[in-house]
Amino acid sequence: MADTALPTALNLPMLDPLPEPTQKYFDVCQEKLGMIPNVLRAYAFDIEKLDAFTGMYNNLMLAPSGLSKLEREMIAVLVSSINKCFYCLVAHGAAVRAMSGDPKLGEALVMNYRVADLDARQRAMLDFAALITTASTTIEEIDRERLRLVGFSDHDIWDIANVAGFFNMTNRVASATAMRPNDDYHAQDR
Amino acid sequence: MADTALPTALNLPMLDPLPEPTQKYFDVCQEKLGMIPNVLRAYAFDIEKLDAFTGMYNNLMLAPSGLSKLEREMIAVLVSSINKCFYCLVAHGAAVRAMSGDPKLGEALVMNYRVADLDARQRAMLDFAALITTASTTIEEIDRERLRLVGFSDHDIWDIANVAGFFNMTNRVASATAMRPNDDYHAQDR
Amino acid sequence: MADTALPTALNLPMLDPLPEPTQKYFDVCQEKLGMIPNVLRAYAFDIEKLDAFTGMYNNLMLAPSGLSKLEREMIAVLVSSINKCFYCLVAHGAAVRAMSGDPKLGEALVMNYRVADLDARQRAMLDFAALITTASTTIEEIDRERLRLVGFSDHDIWDIANVAGFFNMTNRVASATAMRPNDDYHAQDR
Amino acid sequence: MADTALPTALNLPMLDPLPEPTQKYFDVCQEKLGMIPNVLRAYAFDIEKLDAFTGMYNNLMLAPSGLSKLEREMIAVLVSSINKCFYCLVAHGAAVRAMSGDPKLGEALVMNYRVADLDARQRAMLDFAALITTASTTIEEIDRERLRLVGFSDHDIWDIANVAGFFNMTNRVASATAMRPNDDYHAQDR
Amino acid sequence: MADTALPTALNLPMLDPLPEPTQKYFDVCQEKLGMIPNVLRAYAFDIEKLDAFTGMYNNLMLAPSGLSKLEREMIAVLVSSINKCFYCLVAHGAAVRAMSGDPKLGEALVMNYRVADLDARQRAMLDFAALITTASTTIEEIDRERLRLVGFSDHDIWDIANVAGFFNMTNRVASATAMRPNDDYHAQDR
Amino acid sequence: MADTALPTALNLPMLDPLPEPTQKYFDVCQEKLGMIPNVLRAYAFDIEKLDAFTGMYNNLMLAPSGLSKLEREMIAVLVSSINKCFYCLVAHGAAVRAMSGDPKLGEALVMNYRVADLDARQRAMLDFAALITTASTTIEEIDRERLRLVGFSDHDIWDIANVAGFFNMTNRVASATAMRPNDDYHAQDR
Repeated sequence: MADTALPTALNLPMLDPLPEPTQKYFDVCQEKLGMIPNVLRAYAFDIEKLDAFTGMYNNLMLAPSGLSKLEREMIAVLVSSINKCFYCLVAHGAAVRAMSGDPKLGEALVMNYRVADLDARQRAMLDFAALITTASTTIEEIDRERLRLVGFSDHDIWDIANVAGFFNMTNRVASATAMRPNDDYHAQDR
Repeated sequence: MADTALPTALNLPMLDPLPEPTQKYFDVCQEKLGMIPNVLRAYAFDIEKLDAFTGMYNNLMLAPSGLSKLEREMIAVLVSSINKCFYCLVAHGAAVRAMSGDPKLGEALVMNYRVADLDARQRAMLDFAALITTASTTIEEIDRERLRLVGFSDHDIWDIANVAGFFNMTNRVASATAMRPNDDYHAQDR
Repeated sequence: MADTALPTALNLPMLDPLPEPTQKYFDVCQEKLGMIPNVLRAYAFDIEKLDAFTGMYNNLMLAPSGLSKLEREMIAVLVSSINKCFYCLVAHGAAVRAMSGDPKLGEALVMNYRVADLDARQRAMLDFAALITTASTTIEEIDRERLRLVGFSDHDIWDIANVAGFFNMTNRVASATAMRPNDDYHAQDR
Repeated sequence: MADTALPTALNLPMLDPLPEPTQKYFDVCQEKLGMIPNVLRAYAFDIEKLDAFTGMYNNLMLAPSGLSKLEREMIAVLVSSINKCFYCLVAHGAAVRAMSGDPKLGEALVMNYRVADLDARQRAMLDFAALITTASTTIEEIDRERLRLVGFSDHDIWDIANVAGFFNMTNRVASATAMRPNDDYHAQDR
Repeated sequence: MADTALPTALNLPMLDPLPEPTQKYFDVCQEKLGMIPNVLRAYAFDIEKLDAFTGMYNNLMLAPSGLSKLEREMIAVLVSSINKCFYCLVAHGAAVRAMSGDPKLGEALVMNYRVADLDARQRAMLDFAALITTASTTIEEIDRERLRLVGFSDHDIWDIANVAGFFNMTNRVASATAMRPNDDYHAQDR
Repeated sequence: MADTALPTALNLPMLDPLPEPTQKYFDVCQEKLGMIPNVLRAYAFDIEKLDAFTGMYNNLMLAPSGLSKLEREMIAVLVSSINKCFYCLVAHGAAVRAMSGDPKLGEALVMNYRVADLDARQRAMLDFAALITTASTTIEEIDRERLRLVGFSDHDIWDIANVAGFFNMTNRVASATAMRPNDDYHAQDR
């Protein structure tokens, strides 16, 4: 049977002890979120890999952008919904509920984003993220023009593509390794 | 018409001048590869994004691993073949030809990896990478066991999942932005 | 804009007043569930259609069967997950959480049933329901044998097929008419 | 080997004797159609299930509607063609041939409805039924508007959705149980 | 509106007069079959194309082979069923009914070959033809071994592949040009 | 292990000696191309089959047509790219490189034709060929009109459909028999 103390189905325990900066980072997580997200614990068997992951994650999700942090989380949930990734739907579904204060929005993005109450800009953003996820090879200039028409800059388009691309990576890593979401997410912000 | 001096269809020119460490990195590329890969030029409108990308890329493709560097490139080409990403097929197809000294292997991975002359270990590795790409949500313990049976460790499985996941990201970013591969790749190592 | 007082996007208001037996049935719903499920309000423009629907629904979901009521709700959620039906995922996801006392089970069935903690019998039941939903034309005797091997009778197989079939109907009716789930479901039994 | 006296692959024989109202209903079938359709024999192991099924079936296919009875049968055949359900294609293909007096129409709906000689209204009706069958989650207001534009009322749209939904149920039940169509259908109305 | 005197939606009338050998061939068709199949009329705007087509067709369907002529027609119908080609289903469905004396077999192959009453050899043959049609790129030695195990020679495997391949061509030509089957087929051998 | 002297995985050696006209034809191939394409060696176990194949091939690819020979090769590569046929991608990819003098065009058609630098006429031609390959049953008059709008005659449409159809045949025959492309193609015209 799987060792449920491990964050994935792979036998790759966290370094013990963790290097000091990592331990501090985890302590901050624990304090702010009430938990250390299992995705961080999963990468913590190799600190260089953990740092590369958090470096990219934090840039994409937290750096200044024409997309709000909530919008980036909305893309995360939509992409994860198409890829049916349990870990990411649980964790980022909770983030959408928390950031939006709208539990129904989180549910709609998990289940079928077309029923969500979105303005034209957010709908175009999610349509593009869905297209990137299911049929990226078909994307042509007309698809980027649709985004420009509702007000997105080329920098925004880059960010949409990179956030959507990133969750197409993490969805697959999480599913391939049976990554387990922290139980605490389920009841949050309902 | 698109400005073909830009590496993608987005109007996001490189910083000019580049920060010194980036310029040095690009100079090394130019010297070693005879070119600066367009993917680096594409990210160079924002050095933090470039550094996050190269940080993850270099860890995945170059750090010590139970997978050889050629095997990681083989995964790159297979995933890109499924996603039909022109940029990545051209660039990483060339890498497989160069590293393997076997132009036919590069072509087979671009076209249909099932016809390539692979041993059981590499075939299992590519089958898992294909599964991650097309149906990650269906992955279960039995799929990981298939890898262990041909000798992969849990650390190796992590690496296969992460390399395959990474190219599922970059394929989508490249296709969504119409990233153009450097022309030099086409004739290399044929 | 859609009239959100209506349970679907179609302009088909409930009969007013409702016939007495229907009104009584709705009063019971209100008392027991704290709401009248919108699917009932949607059918109530035509009492014969409502009665035909509830007749079949109540027989399938409540009549004696080798499948527990929870198991029938589990099939409902799995089928709705494949068909990405917002109404049914919200309403029956809540039912699974309530009946099982296990919010995580409800979430897993909404998101990816393969990660749920199921015994062999329930897993085979859901695999068959998934097969009915995605590829019914391929079903052969071997697929029914898989169910018999884990202990299901032919009567049980009939019930699995009919419950799974039923939600393939209602998912499509709900999606085609933009049926809105009652808001109360979202926070229940989290 | 399967007992071909049974209407499906499941060992669920008809009640014997049948309750009097059921026997009378079957006698009427025999007299009018020259046979008892096997779908009725299949449900007759449990009269409540049979009555629930016939209650819904008769309401959908025979009750007053803006759709003619032939049009409802056309939807039945189209949906069954997409789901490749042998039972329903044989039985309802025969019904289309009989009701329309046009054997070629029956064949076209079985094989590829796009080649059938349809007016714009019937084509829109079948396009919507096809969409419900293959991609119900994508349906939005614009799809309903297409139906209104060719003259369908909201009540008609409800009926199209429900008839198409119903055959998405019965196709799956028939395929999952290997329901056998009565041989008599094959030569009828050719 | 289309000129229904033409066998397809393209304005490519038959040569008039036909060259003598072609006219003789058509006279034989008329005498033996009671019609000139529209596929021949469609190619008769260019006799070299007609001769190339009939040359390949007659070799595949009529030359000595380990597959009976009926078996080759069975492959034709199965492939056409997957591709949903109206012309080929009508014409070759009639051929299966005529050659087998079993109208039900013709219908089953049009609708869902898995319900047809086939021996292991014919089932393996049709499974391989289905695989060629839907996923030829996945075929490996094990798939050919399945055919050898039920008694097919390598020559037979060549013939199965070529007959299945041929109808993947003609299905597409017929659908792309809206080729109309002769009406006479519909009532034949029911 | 497979006998790599044979052009496919089937044990069907060439006639020995070949009939004189066939031997002459092969001698011409050797002289002009520097090789005998393995597809010809594969059919040469039965000269009637070889002649039927070359008769159709030569008519389609070499006879006068509104499509240039290069355009017909472009269709060949695009169709083979969708079907992921190693043999045809290698052989006809080389032909596109040779005929066009543009190695990048050959690569783009192998990898993702949407990135190729095509005029509206060639793009419409390839879009139609792609549609024939992936969804021929959906083709309607509007699809043919798109071709007429960019200047194609009905004769040209016939030729596009037949060339695209033909490679849907040969792709499947080549994949089903594991046909091996001649090694010489790989380095040609890079």
